[in-house]
Amino acid sequence: MFYFFINLYFCVMQDLLNYQEKVVSYLTEIVKDKEPRNLYEPVSYILELGGKRLRPILTLLAADAFNGNVDNALHAAISVEVFHNFSLVHDDIMDDAPLRRGKDTVHEKWDINTGILSGDAMLIIAYQLFEKYESKVFQDLAKLFSDTALKVCEGQQYDMDFETRNDVDIPEYIKMITYKTSVLIGAALEMGAIVSGASSDDRKAIYDFGINLGVAFQLQDDYLDAFGNPETFGKQIGGDIIENKKTFLYLNALELCSSDDKTLLLGLYNSNNIDKVEKVSTVKDIFKRSGVVNLVKEEIQNYTFRSFEFLEELKIDSDKKDMLRNFGEWLMNRNV
Amino acid sequence: MFYFFINLYFCVMQDLLNYQEKVVSYLTEIVKDKEPRNLYEPVSYILELGGKRLRPILTLLAADAFNGNVDNALHAAISVEVFHNFSLVHDDIMDDAPLRRGKDTVHEKWDINTGILSGDAMLIIAYQLFEKYESKVFQDLAKLFSDTALKVCEGQQYDMDFETRNDVDIPEYIKMITYKTSVLIGAALEMGAIVSGASSDDRKAIYDFGINLGVAFQLQDDYLDAFGNPETFGKQIGGDIIENKKTFLYLNALELCSSDDKTLLLGLYNSNNIDKVEKVSTVKDIFKRSGVVNLVKEEIQNYTFRSFEFLEELKIDSDKKDMLRNFGEWLMNRNV
Repeated sequence: MFYFFINLYFCVMQDLLNYQEKVVSYLTEIVKDKEPRNLYEPVSYILELGGKRLRPILTLLAADAFNGNVDNALHAAISVEVFHNFSLVHDDIMDDAPLRRGKDTVHEKWDINTGILSGDAMLIIAYQLFEKYESKVFQDLAKLFSDTALKVCEGQQYDMDFETRNDVDIPEYIKMITYKTSVLIGAALEMGAIVSGASSDDRKAIYDFGINLGVAFQLQDDYLDAFGNPETFGKQIGGDIIENKKTFLYLNALELCSSDDKTLLLGLYNSNNIDKVEKVSTVKDIFKRSGVVNLVKEEIQNYTFRSFEFLEELKIDSDKKDMLRNFGEWLMNRNV
Repeated sequence: MFYFFINLYFCVMQDLLNYQEKVVSYLTEIVKDKEPRNLYEPVSYILELGGKRLRPILTLLAADAFNGNVDNALHAAISVEVFHNFSLVHDDIMDDAPLRRGKDTVHEKWDINTGILSGDAMLIIAYQLFEKYESKVFQDLAKLFSDTALKVCEGQQYDMDFETRNDVDIPEYIKMITYKTSVLIGAALEMGAIVSGASSDDRKAIYDFGINLGVAFQLQDDYLDAFGNPETFGKQIGGDIIENKKTFLYLNALELCSSDDKTLLLGLYNSNNIDKVEKVSTVKDIFKRSGVVNLVKEEIQNYTFRSFEFLEELKIDSDKKDMLRNFGEWLMNRNV
């Protein structure tokens, strides 16, 4: 069993690394030498800052799953990555974030105006990448892209609205993370299907695979933020707790915990004069006592299983389904 | 002659007012009731703030000139107006402008984050408006739109770069205003041509009509900013001078004026401790002495005449050419 997984992951990883290489090589060319440099240098900077390139890889995997030409799918894949980086540049301004992937954010390295304008240019460039396709494919891609991009903006707005609201419920939270994170995962996959000429049923099924996998992924992020391994998670453990983020853990804990713990939890999230380490430790204890730790693990599994059910609906070869499932499993088995 | 003009302008104005009404009515519907309200209220606010609606009217005029259906062109026209307002919202943040059309700017009424995110949503909505057209028209519109939108960003960057550069030359300045202002005028007209199925020669000619008219319009703005009638211009006279803007007047004055005046002009543009009224008055005197007042008037005429030459190339009815020329003349005869 162990060797099976090693072998399976090795095959998946080899494809992924090849795909990642294609993506990175395209990204370095995209605005090279374009003028004015003060507009395009920040674009190159953020696009070359690294990252796993998960989203464009999903587009390439999906194109391959529908027996399409992976190189032909590359323009759509890069569009998704350029859009993702556009949203990072503008979100980092809104969140006043100094660092991105351990380096200065664009507005920190340059200034806010540069972040706004270079971000705008990236959003437009993302659309331009679809011009490589004939008009029907172009329209299908651009329509899906616009629908997705607008949902991502709406998700960001909901996220900001939630900061000052005390009546956020679980369905609203799931909608927010679906818009902010999952729709782009779904769209990345569906774009691969579109460029490979997949049927509308298949397009819908692979999109829903992405939506559910995206929610599972974000819930796992909520879990890892509190209970992940500090050595491997890559972010500060307890970051969401310190920032009083209304995550899946927090919202469910409020509903499930004892009334004493509820008072304690609300107090901790409404005060800024508490030692951070102690706060993180106390909140994690409340989470454990309330039962949300098991609940979030179950929900992660539910969304992951549901995503695999959508895979079953696809009219593609079973080895292609295996490949997509392997990718989903690999994604969900990171450093829990 | 006088009555001819009155009659001509009355006919033009009647059409324009009808078109303006169509545009305003569509704009009020565009994000009505969309959620989340914190994202879409600022969009409604800026779209309903008023303005002449010149750009969408140009799209409708062009659609009519090519015997197309004006109502069918309305989605493209609105896209141009939504994009224009997106650029105003983001530019107002970058310029730290408190007022727009006499009312609070979006970032002033809400905050910078709202301005960034609502602006992003408007850019996406502008693309979505093309979804009303079949795929070939959709692609033609979206390609022209992306090319235009990216040039507008580049123009804004050049404008910001020029603030700290002392070696800006006239061709660079013309390129900057072409990108920042004229390409959207050209694109607005070409979009009307596209939705009416115009030939590629006609598309190119009407675009170039718009480019040249746009440069004439912007040069006239430079002139009026210094020498316009304070009662009718609508902006503070001398605003560009107070802000040390390197306009066509300033750049040419530096080349044409005496060496004493050059020293004086450079001194006035590099000091912040000068009485504004006195500064505006002295700079205007230098402009007059240097001969740039006649020069800019000649250039406005040159660009206007050139724009009319492109009209002559169009394969359309002569009364349609007259209509477009009348519009151009009406535009260039405002309050000089």
